[in-house]
Amino acid sequence: MPESIDTLIVHAHLFTMQGDGVGYIADGAVAVRDRWIVGVGSTVELQARFQPRQTIDATDCAVLPGLIDAHMHTPWAIARGVAQDVTNWMQKALAPYARHLTPEAALAGTRLNVVEALKTGTTTFGDYATPVPGWAEIFEDIGVRARLTPTINALPEGGMAGWKVGDLYPLDPEAGLKAIDKAVAFAQAWHGAADHRITVMFGPQAPDMLDREQLLLVKRLAARDGLMLHMHVAQGDREIEQMLIRYGKRTPQYLEQIGYLDDQLLAVHLTEATDDETEMIAQSGASMVLCSGSIGIIDGIVPPAHVFRQAGGRVALGSDQAAGNNCNNMFNEMKLTALFNKIKYRDPMRMPAWTVLRMATIEGARAIGLGDEIGSLEPGKQADLILVDLRALNLTPVLEAPVRNIVPNLVYAASGHEVKTVMVAGRVLVQDGKVLTVDEAAVREDAQIQAEELAKLVADDPVHTEMDLLVAMENGNL
Amino acid sequence: MPESIDTLIVHAHLFTMQGDGVGYIADGAVAVRDRWIVGVGSTVELQARFQPRQTIDATDCAVLPGLIDAHMHTPWAIARGVAQDVTNWMQKALAPYARHLTPEAALAGTRLNVVEALKTGTTTFGDYATPVPGWAEIFEDIGVRARLTPTINALPEGGMAGWKVGDLYPLDPEAGLKAIDKAVAFAQAWHGAADHRITVMFGPQAPDMLDREQLLLVKRLAARDGLMLHMHVAQGDREIEQMLIRYGKRTPQYLEQIGYLDDQLLAVHLTEATDDETEMIAQSGASMVLCSGSIGIIDGIVPPAHVFRQAGGRVALGSDQAAGNNCNNMFNEMKLTALFNKIKYRDPMRMPAWTVLRMATIEGARAIGLGDEIGSLEPGKQADLILVDLRALNLTPVLEAPVRNIVPNLVYAASGHEVKTVMVAGRVLVQDGKVLTVDEAAVREDAQIQAEELAKLVADDPVHTEMDLLVAMENGNL
Repeated sequence: MPESIDTLIVHAHLFTMQGDGVGYIADGAVAVRDRWIVGVGSTVELQARFQPRQTIDATDCAVLPGLIDAHMHTPWAIARGVAQDVTNWMQKALAPYARHLTPEAALAGTRLNVVEALKTGTTTFGDYATPVPGWAEIFEDIGVRARLTPTINALPEGGMAGWKVGDLYPLDPEAGLKAIDKAVAFAQAWHGAADHRITVMFGPQAPDMLDREQLLLVKRLAARDGLMLHMHVAQGDREIEQMLIRYGKRTPQYLEQIGYLDDQLLAVHLTEATDDETEMIAQSGASMVLCSGSIGIIDGIVPPAHVFRQAGGRVALGSDQAAGNNCNNMFNEMKLTALFNKIKYRDPMRMPAWTVLRMATIEGARAIGLGDEIGSLEPGKQADLILVDLRALNLTPVLEAPVRNIVPNLVYAASGHEVKTVMVAGRVLVQDGKVLTVDEAAVREDAQIQAEELAKLVADDPVHTEMDLLVAMENGNL
Repeated sequence: MPESIDTLIVHAHLFTMQGDGVGYIADGAVAVRDRWIVGVGSTVELQARFQPRQTIDATDCAVLPGLIDAHMHTPWAIARGVAQDVTNWMQKALAPYARHLTPEAALAGTRLNVVEALKTGTTTFGDYATPVPGWAEIFEDIGVRARLTPTINALPEGGMAGWKVGDLYPLDPEAGLKAIDKAVAFAQAWHGAADHRITVMFGPQAPDMLDREQLLLVKRLAARDGLMLHMHVAQGDREIEQMLIRYGKRTPQYLEQIGYLDDQLLAVHLTEATDDETEMIAQSGASMVLCSGSIGIIDGIVPPAHVFRQAGGRVALGSDQAAGNNCNNMFNEMKLTALFNKIKYRDPMRMPAWTVLRMATIEGARAIGLGDEIGSLEPGKQADLILVDLRALNLTPVLEAPVRNIVPNLVYAASGHEVKTVMVAGRVLVQDGKVLTVDEAAVREDAQIQAEELAKLVADDPVHTEMDLLVAMENGNL
């Protein structure tokens, strides 16, 4: 007697990501009941075992675990494309926009970014942002999985606007406490919400943006509530400079000294970490997020993810912000990660396709502390998965032997627009490339309106005349 | 009395690429009569001047010159994805496929590749291939512009299959003469065909694949017929090794000695050229093709295009082959070129968006000797242009001031699937993302069938057991 289930996906080129490779099953199937995967195997086997309410035919499709974007700043989609091809990206390009970002603009950016990323296969969103009312509801309503991190810093009102390159920026403990209180309240409201689809991390923004006492307070509060810490670490020469002036130590040594390096920590970037520092952080049990696209654009640097992995650490991928990446698309991040590392080490075998696919799925899941729930297709895990149309011309032909070419083409040839269907927690959110849970045109239009308003505020603020890209405008380059 | 024309494109974010920047015109228009651009300006101005047979509304679209892919090997789309994440790519991955490539498979690959690239905005195809009957007809029939280069080498029958790493490969002057004769006949048949839409270059494959006498013969024949030379130069350690064994000189010094460096030469790759050698080649008047994606994957190297440009040389972009890139998409090449160079020089200002957009358009046109005909939108040039839908979520928002964000987003956020309309020589080849001049589904199916047959021949050939990716297959990584 076949077991009743909700959905049976059949005839897939199935990449389960089980084991140490990609866990390929030819003519594969996935059985889904409620939010869970209840069976993974061949189509013949699962058709005999299960009686589905609906069947999804995945012929000519690759079926993969949903992709995990471990580090984003979704509000910044509202300023996509205004901050690249410059030095001192934060101060000389982004700051005038940061100064005028309204809650409405931030929410419009988040909506835009979530829909953009969802359509290209991202199912888990590691978003890091200043929480405004309505932020978490966007993830809840659209139906995606989110690891939300409300920003905690002790920067005085006005944030980073007005910072000069080289200044030691002031810390305001009261602002820090306010941010900590806000984060605690946010976690109480949202950690575990929507059947555990929404969870929370605490996010001390960076070691240079909170004093030692408050950094340690955040760590204690996170430990009390069973939360991870999601923090930018060694994220640029700006940060290292601040740390040296303030504490006489580079970031990794400082964090080690204050007891911050352990498996509670998700360390983002490590842009400026030396190989030795990177190994020390990896060996502490902390995980890393590698944002290849954004750090490539902002700094021209390939962060030390290879060293981190060699030292036994887990690395997730992240798309960071659209104001300096400029897209939030895990296919883009997989490709850039593979290519940048080949170039960094002048070795075409470095970071092969299968490795970066694991970073975007099972290894990423483990890095963000969700390794038991997502990242691979196996019974007992959440049914987060995507169908990629292999009939796209840029993924043609599909070959099985002697060399199966699907994974290399997913990494090096796909752009993300080949994603056809996206399921999160058993629910289909994208079908035939269309988002079912939100009005895409309305999201786009609202973002356009909010972005124009923000740009107008920036244009009216004299501080904008310091932006480096005005030179490119004058020269007719934009 | 308004002038009668065929097509008026109106309300565009127009990037003419005139002048030294991107030549932006807000609410811009392009007037097309027959194959030519007859007017470029504001919509208001051109609507007053011209009476069009058809109007194309480009509201919310960027309109750009068609993109130029200066170096491709289109037949290899048939083996997309079988050759990456390995060392000695040619011998240890591609060779078994090369040994069994039939004319039918080659043509199916070319068709697939042309349609793939056309849909992502490529209008000019610098294809380099062993000519088989029907090759040129594909470009003619689909309606794209092509610079076709039939391969000339003196490799014995069987080509590169069976080469061992480190062997000095044999040259067969008779095979060389045969290839030269074939190229001359091909040029007679095709140079200037289809109203000059199809033109020809001569393609001595590489300095290590033809002896000195035959290299010079090809140069004389090309000069006689007014053709450029399209040659791989310093394309890998394999070539340099061959040159040192055979002539005791590295490639650039050898080419200088035999008088090969001048403005007749389009030098592809320069992967192994030192900065000094690169400057020497640029100063000779030769042009360069930079294949960022393919050289990144195959060699883990960023070729010296920045040095070449600093020395006054012109650089075009090329997508090379899908068996080791793995896509043929100029948006991909623009993005990778900008990012790889930032990383190579650890400088976020290196190769900004506008520079790589120029390399894919006007600078590329000049590099391949078509600077007077294509590459920018101006009266008197051929009407090769593309419309890119800026309403795509990953290109939203569109901002005009204080910083116009369109060019950065085209380079860093677009994937090519945002291309909506493609016109070549005044004729619309792609409309709403659909190719009008060929049956896309049939192209895909034929490619799949031919690729499976090729893969079967490879699987049946004992030589395939030397392929490095078989290890990845065994390990469950593919």
